[in-house]
Amino acid sequence: MNSSIIRFILGNVLKTEAALLLLPCLVALIYTEPEGVWYLLVAAVCFVLGSLMTKRKPANNIFYLKEGCIATSLSWIFLSFFGCLPFCLTGEIPSFTDALFETISGFTTTGASILSDVEALAHCSLFWRSFTHWVGGMGVLVFLLAVIPLSGGSNINLMRAESPGPSVGKLVPKIKTTARFLYLIYLGMTVLETILLMIGRMPLFDALCTSFGTAGTGGFGIKNSSIAGYSFYIQWVVTIFMILFGINFNAYYLLLFGKIKSALRMEEIRYYLLIILVSVAVIFLNILGLCANAFEALTQSAFQVASIMTTTGFSTTDFNTWDASCKVILVLLMFVGACAGSTGGGIKVSRLVILFKTVRKEFTSYIHPKSIKKIKMDDKPVEHEVIRTVNVYIVTFIVLFVFSVFLISFDDTDLVTGFTAVAATINNIGPGLEMVGPAENFSFFSPFAKYVLMFDMLAGRLELFPLLLLFHPSIWKDLFAYKKSMRSFRKGRNQIY
Amino acid sequence: MNSSIIRFILGNVLKTEAALLLLPCLVALIYTEPEGVWYLLVAAVCFVLGSLMTKRKPANNIFYLKEGCIATSLSWIFLSFFGCLPFCLTGEIPSFTDALFETISGFTTTGASILSDVEALAHCSLFWRSFTHWVGGMGVLVFLLAVIPLSGGSNINLMRAESPGPSVGKLVPKIKTTARFLYLIYLGMTVLETILLMIGRMPLFDALCTSFGTAGTGGFGIKNSSIAGYSFYIQWVVTIFMILFGINFNAYYLLLFGKIKSALRMEEIRYYLLIILVSVAVIFLNILGLCANAFEALTQSAFQVASIMTTTGFSTTDFNTWDASCKVILVLLMFVGACAGSTGGGIKVSRLVILFKTVRKEFTSYIHPKSIKKIKMDDKPVEHEVIRTVNVYIVTFIVLFVFSVFLISFDDTDLVTGFTAVAATINNIGPGLEMVGPAENFSFFSPFAKYVLMFDMLAGRLELFPLLLLFHPSIWKDLFAYKKSMRSFRKGRNQIY
Repeated sequence: MNSSIIRFILGNVLKTEAALLLLPCLVALIYTEPEGVWYLLVAAVCFVLGSLMTKRKPANNIFYLKEGCIATSLSWIFLSFFGCLPFCLTGEIPSFTDALFETISGFTTTGASILSDVEALAHCSLFWRSFTHWVGGMGVLVFLLAVIPLSGGSNINLMRAESPGPSVGKLVPKIKTTARFLYLIYLGMTVLETILLMIGRMPLFDALCTSFGTAGTGGFGIKNSSIAGYSFYIQWVVTIFMILFGINFNAYYLLLFGKIKSALRMEEIRYYLLIILVSVAVIFLNILGLCANAFEALTQSAFQVASIMTTTGFSTTDFNTWDASCKVILVLLMFVGACAGSTGGGIKVSRLVILFKTVRKEFTSYIHPKSIKKIKMDDKPVEHEVIRTVNVYIVTFIVLFVFSVFLISFDDTDLVTGFTAVAATINNIGPGLEMVGPAENFSFFSPFAKYVLMFDMLAGRLELFPLLLLFHPSIWKDLFAYKKSMRSFRKGRNQIY
Repeated sequence: MNSSIIRFILGNVLKTEAALLLLPCLVALIYTEPEGVWYLLVAAVCFVLGSLMTKRKPANNIFYLKEGCIATSLSWIFLSFFGCLPFCLTGEIPSFTDALFETISGFTTTGASILSDVEALAHCSLFWRSFTHWVGGMGVLVFLLAVIPLSGGSNINLMRAESPGPSVGKLVPKIKTTARFLYLIYLGMTVLETILLMIGRMPLFDALCTSFGTAGTGGFGIKNSSIAGYSFYIQWVVTIFMILFGINFNAYYLLLFGKIKSALRMEEIRYYLLIILVSVAVIFLNILGLCANAFEALTQSAFQVASIMTTTGFSTTDFNTWDASCKVILVLLMFVGACAGSTGGGIKVSRLVILFKTVRKEFTSYIHPKSIKKIKMDDKPVEHEVIRTVNVYIVTFIVLFVFSVFLISFDDTDLVTGFTAVAATINNIGPGLEMVGPAENFSFFSPFAKYVLMFDMLAGRLELFPLLLLFHPSIWKDLFAYKKSMRSFRKGRNQIY
């Protein structure tokens, strides 16, 4: 295994984090908060470490999917580890486990919090907390690809390891250009939302943090009541932008280049919008009696459906108090998730569409045993390889899910809490039901359970395989063999001189 | 579609049911219970109807998988419909919906009951209730195949539609001989259990009914406390026989013919026993503190694990009161189920083993992209077609499961009740958790929810596709087209004469 390229990438990630940490310093400067010093300190540490790691150029630039996966997983772990230090140092989250949980929850755009009183945080910490969502949403490695020249064609392995969904298309032949385009669209939409929120008389700081949370489909609020305290106008802006950020970014790319027809023809987006529509309708009818009027019921149902389906996790009401049928819908939406190629989590609509089509095909084969029809998506036949990986993904997902629920169960919470806590983290949503409902938080879990949930958040964000690969024995054997060969190589060199 | 052969099969099923209904009549005679008259009446009705339906021989004997599926699904629906009538007529279960629920639960070997006081039933009704388990366990169509001469080779389509598991092997070239062998083993083991129970001083009637429930992995008890009131010896006999009936019957066939090595080498059985062992160990350690001594803890954990894993559903304790981790294990075991080719339900161990191996293969392909290894089971490569159907099965299962939970949720029970009620019915177990726990019953559900659960029981027992196929529009179009062609055929004939 080419471990020198992994070191090099990790070094660059740290240098990037150093730069990102300067933003909360700036916020601290504006609000004259002493906490900013700690952010500056961590930034300095990251910069020094990163510089040391990138001092020596890698032996060669070639890396395969294996290296791509390892680099990606370790990047996210490094990012989170150093990103959580300011919370500890300022004393705002004294426990390291809790701070790490909060930061992983941020970068993975989950939005599950261990804080019961977020309003007690300094502005710079609130900003950093929301900003991690924004960084995580599009992926920090995609950012790296956009700005740092690495090797040639094999960059697709990094992109493949980090990007959500089964069909990561290269928008343009050059991966660097693709990454830049994605970030431009992302940035543009974030700015647009911030402006629209400010038109609704939201202060700049609130608008920025809320936009970060929406764009990354993260869901950390800066108020204890999440978005419930804001006006209906603001709630609708957030609802619409949550839905927009849950759409496959390829669609925006096509729109930008005037290919409106192709964008509208994307099957995944149609199903995505259909699911949202149906869910809102059912929940609307169900909660009509609980609300003051039909408009409030519509606002609440649309907001909660959009928030859960896009795996954002903002809330305007405590859906824990809703009927069982509404709760079942929300739990189902947790697993469905957003579109592939969006910033959202979950299993992804396109995967489910492919699975449904496989089942339909099976039924047809019972009735017409000789028919040989290929499964199609967007009028193009889906390759057998894609169907296979989707199936494997689902199975792996279920195995990890079930195993996590089992591990969590040793905390002896009720089953709904355990089940939805894992669902809310592995799908990168945030709130679940019962003890992890929107009005509650994750602080009561044992440290062991918290680490399980952290793992789930990372696994969900990185689409399982890159992270799980870290636990494959042959990876460590490879790394060990590489080090040994390097040592004997150096030893040999010493003998010659 | 060849609907005349379907009519012919259904007629034979009714005649078989008429014969089966004579057994409770005999029980009523022994205990001099007036309820026996109603059983005799229903038997007569079944016989007359069945004779009418089989009077005309089918136009031709050829049928394909489609006809096999339709015939199987309708057989089970017919069986349950007529089988529930005595319960209504005797007035022991006045509501038709409830009586149908109880009978479907019986034939599908689920064991979910709507009765709060089973001890109030007459002996003949108790016998019929347990006997439906025994009939359903091995499948009534397999029985038909064993005794009634149908067409030649295409019988495998009936067998395939009714038998559980992904790999229905023909044990011997002739399907009729296979069916007879299976029934012989089944009968032999049931008799053996009855004798062993009677050695433990269980009365003959109790021993017979308990053996029926164990053999079919059904779980209807004849006491309100299920098996809890019996001695430890009896509990252990039942435990061991539950495990034995959950094993792939091919193994017994191999054992009978002295191929002990091949029987022991069956991978599915090894995993099956391993899962039982590990689950018993974890639960044993967990409930040690709750029990009077270690032996009681071992007896209870072994009994409950065997009961749930083999999808029998007997109980000796209320596991609703156990820790969350024990409950999670039991819920997981519900889905795992028994071996393929046994009388048990669930997803089946072999399916899960194949899925696990697919995932492992995927990981290997990440690390060694060029390796081409075939998945093996029992040292034989698994065909691609099998892997595909297993994947489709799992997806269909999840879709049906999720949809059922959603429909049930309109009853507004707590989520654990709704979730485990569907899990306990679709996997043909019986008891779930909370309001459907081992000390409770299913009577509180609305009629709508009960019909959903009945559907799930049938779908689970028939392995989804045969039953779901009934809802495919083209089936009805086919049937309609056939009738139309027959009508125009007769019309044409009339014109000639």
